[in-house]
Amino acid sequence: MVKSNAIELGDDRKTRGVNKGVSILDLIFRILAFIGTLSSAISMATTKETLPFFTRFFRFRAEYNDLPTLTFFVVANGVVSGYLLLSLPFSIILILRSNAQRIRMILMFFDMAMVTLLTAGASAAAAIVYLAHKGNRKVNWLAICHQFNAFCERISGSLIGSFAGVILIALLVMLAGVALARRP
Amino acid sequence: MVKSNAIELGDDRKTRGVNKGVSILDLIFRILAFIGTLSSAISMATTKETLPFFTRFFRFRAEYNDLPTLTFFVVANGVVSGYLLLSLPFSIILILRSNAQRIRMILMFFDMAMVTLLTAGASAAAAIVYLAHKGNRKVNWLAICHQFNAFCERISGSLIGSFAGVILIALLVMLAGVALARRP
Repeated sequence: MVKSNAIELGDDRKTRGVNKGVSILDLIFRILAFIGTLSSAISMATTKETLPFFTRFFRFRAEYNDLPTLTFFVVANGVVSGYLLLSLPFSIILILRSNAQRIRMILMFFDMAMVTLLTAGASAAAAIVYLAHKGNRKVNWLAICHQFNAFCERISGSLIGSFAGVILIALLVMLAGVALARRP
Repeated sequence: MVKSNAIELGDDRKTRGVNKGVSILDLIFRILAFIGTLSSAISMATTKETLPFFTRFFRFRAEYNDLPTLTFFVVANGVVSGYLLLSLPFSIILILRSNAQRIRMILMFFDMAMVTLLTAGASAAAAIVYLAHKGNRKVNWLAICHQFNAFCERISGSLIGSFAGVILIALLVMLAGVALARRP
C-alpha cells in the first residue's frame, strides 16, 4: 500500500504497537488457559474414591468414568489443552509479525470452535456435579456427595480450571477481533 | 485516507462487496438463531406431563422446572433470543454502512458472550436429558423416561433449536472476524 502522508505513518506505527500488545496478551492468556484446562483434565481423570468401610450399599468405589458426562469433560479439556499447546508457536509468530492477519484469523476460528467445546464439557459436568451435591427429590435422584465426600470435592474443584479456560479463550477471540479491526 | 491508485480503489470496492455479503449472511444467521433459541425456550417452558393413571409412585406430574438445569436452559435461551432480536437493527446498519467497524466489533463481543451462555445452557440441559433417558446404575439414578415418555421427547426436541443457535452464533463471530479483517 502506498502511504501518502506522515500522519498515516504515525497511525500505522501506533496500530502496530497496539497489535503487538494484543499479541503478547494473546500468548499469556493462551498459556494460562492451557494450564487451566490441562490441570482440570488431569485432576478429573485421576479422581477416584474407595470408601474405607463396608456397608450394605452395593458400591464402595467412585470413579470419574462412572459418569459418562465427566468422561466427556476430561476429553474436552484434553483436546482443548492439546490445541492450546499446538497454537503457542502461532501466537509467538503473531508477536513477531504484527501483520500476519491470515494466521490470526485462522487461530480465531479454531479458538471459537474450542471455546464452544470447552464450554459444553464444563457446563455439562457442572450440571452433573450439581446433581451429585444436591440430588433431585422430584425425580428421585439422590445426592451421592454424603457418601463420596472427597470424590465430590475433587470433581467440583476440577471445574474451576475449565471455566477459567472458557473465559480466557473467549477473551482470546475478542482480542483477535480487536487486532483484526486494527490491521496496519 | 488518500487513495493513490486505481487498483486500490478496485480492491476497496471488492472488499466492500465482500463485507456487504458477510453482513447479509450475518442478518440471516441472526434471524435463524433467534427463531431457534426462541422456539427452544418456548417448547421447554411449556413442557409438562401429567400421567393419566394412578400408581403407587408418589408423583404423577413432570414439569420442566422440576429440574433446575432445565430452568437455566429456558433462561439462557430466553436471554439469547432477546439479545438476538435487539441486535437485528444493528445488523441492518452493518448492511447499509459497510465501514461501521466499531458496531461490528461491539456486536462480536456480545455475540461471543451469548454463544458461551447458550452453549452452557444447552449442554447442561443435554447432560440432564441424557440422564433422564439412560439413568446411571452406578450412582443409582434411574431413567425417568419410561414413565414420562412425552415429557422426555419434548425436552429432547427442545435441545435442537438451542444447539442450532450455538452453531449459528459461533458462525456469526467467525463472520465478524472475516469482515473486521477486510476493513476497507
